[in-house]
Amino acid sequence: HEDSSGPGEVHLVGTGPGDPGLLTLRAVQLMQTADVVLYDRLVSDDILRLVSPSARMVYVGKHSGFHTRTQDEIHRLLLAFAEAGACVIRLKGGDPYVFGRGGEEVQYLAAKGIQVHAVPGITAAAGICAELGIPMTHRGVATSVRFLTGHARDGGEQELVDSSVAGAADPHTTLVVYMGLQTLPSLQAQLEAHGLPPDVPAVAVERGTTRRQRVCWGSVGQLAGRAQAAGLKSPTLIIIGQPHERVGI
Amino acid sequence: HEDSSGPGEVHLVGTGPGDPGLLTLRAVQLMQTADVVLYDRLVSDDILRLVSPSARMVYVGKHSGFHTRTQDEIHRLLLAFAEAGACVIRLKGGDPYVFGRGGEEVQYLAAKGIQVHAVPGITAAAGICAELGIPMTHRGVATSVRFLTGHARDGGEQELVDSSVAGAADPHTTLVVYMGLQTLPSLQAQLEAHGLPPDVPAVAVERGTTRRQRVCWGSVGQLAGRAQAAGLKSPTLIIIGQPHERVGI
Repeated sequence: HEDSSGPGEVHLVGTGPGDPGLLTLRAVQLMQTADVVLYDRLVSDDILRLVSPSARMVYVGKHSGFHTRTQDEIHRLLLAFAEAGACVIRLKGGDPYVFGRGGEEVQYLAAKGIQVHAVPGITAAAGICAELGIPMTHRGVATSVRFLTGHARDGGEQELVDSSVAGAADPHTTLVVYMGLQTLPSLQAQLEAHGLPPDVPAVAVERGTTRRQRVCWGSVGQLAGRAQAAGLKSPTLIIIGQPHERVGI
Repeated sequence: HEDSSGPGEVHLVGTGPGDPGLLTLRAVQLMQTADVVLYDRLVSDDILRLVSPSARMVYVGKHSGFHTRTQDEIHRLLLAFAEAGACVIRLKGGDPYVFGRGGEEVQYLAAKGIQVHAVPGITAAAGICAELGIPMTHRGVATSVRFLTGHARDGGEQELVDSSVAGAADPHTTLVVYMGLQTLPSLQAQLEAHGLPPDVPAVAVERGTTRRQRVCWGSVGQLAGRAQAAGLKSPTLIIIGQPHERVGI
């Protein structure tokens, strides 16, 4: 399609937490018709197998502490392929608008006059809670759910901002922390300091919903130690809240 | 399949916000193989058309203020069909574990010895934010997203609990309120009382992602009045936060 007239368009496509059964119909349809596919390490091989064999595949993944492509480079690649007339999809783990930097990509491309659309995906919290039987909300137990990132703004290992943790130490809110493994000891200390009882149930899940899933249960007071002892690695999701103990599954 | 030996199993299946393109592959596969399908009014006709014509369809919807089936009746129906050996699916709008009462159904069935699985769905927040171009998180602008329900615990029109709103009045957290139309004036007043600037951008979306979608934009201070003037009805989702103004789309 790259020789047709006028610029192409870009779709930011959420692919969910890893299990291909959690792809949306729209994601699959776009994967089967795109000219160019940009993907990173959060998109599993089982999902990449569903992309049309005629699509051009471009890896733009980042490894912790070693960026193969900067965000600016990704922006310019998306723009260049779209300006060449291609139908471009940017595959993202989870949902593009939940800690996926989708907003930055949309903002950049829209300012350059490129049509850009987002396709929502099953965010890791939803995929993993369904898998483990943990309701994110539960009547009379958790009336709210909050997604927080454990990463500092620059992607490094800085401490979490204290003010954001203060609001998170609410026993009636299920707290889900993305990319929170490195800052877990600090989060745990801050939640306790803000009054969250240390016996609130918690779980850390590496590569949730994939065949390589590893799960570490424990109270919020125990979790950092147990995750370290088990040697959990990124990507790991942390879920803190009453529902799974009350539901008893 | 109802005559096979042993009890059947139950799948709580999230169907997303309404657009059939947002169904997961697993949801479609279950809809095409189930013996019995329980559904309510939050599942759109476009989605119900994908259910196998040989499945038995059971409507268990609730209308506001008029419960056609109580939650207890739904529990007993799910149990009875499963005990008869059927593969039963309970279709739910959005995600079964985000204000979907999925936890209660799992808890009840698991206690009766029935195998029960949850299939996550695109929650209304994700579907509508993708549709409107509103990132739920955005670097340096919103570092967290929170889903809250506007309904009181008994499903009535009581005031929101003040303590849950206090934590929600954080300008760096995108706030998404489910079923919040009736309590919006009260929420607005409480957010302002807890220090959220009244010019924070907000939007109310009726039947988001469907062909009958209606959208009402305004600052958080204006939204209740505008939603009332436009005559928005349930189901309406409310999104309050900085990202969509900063992204500028």
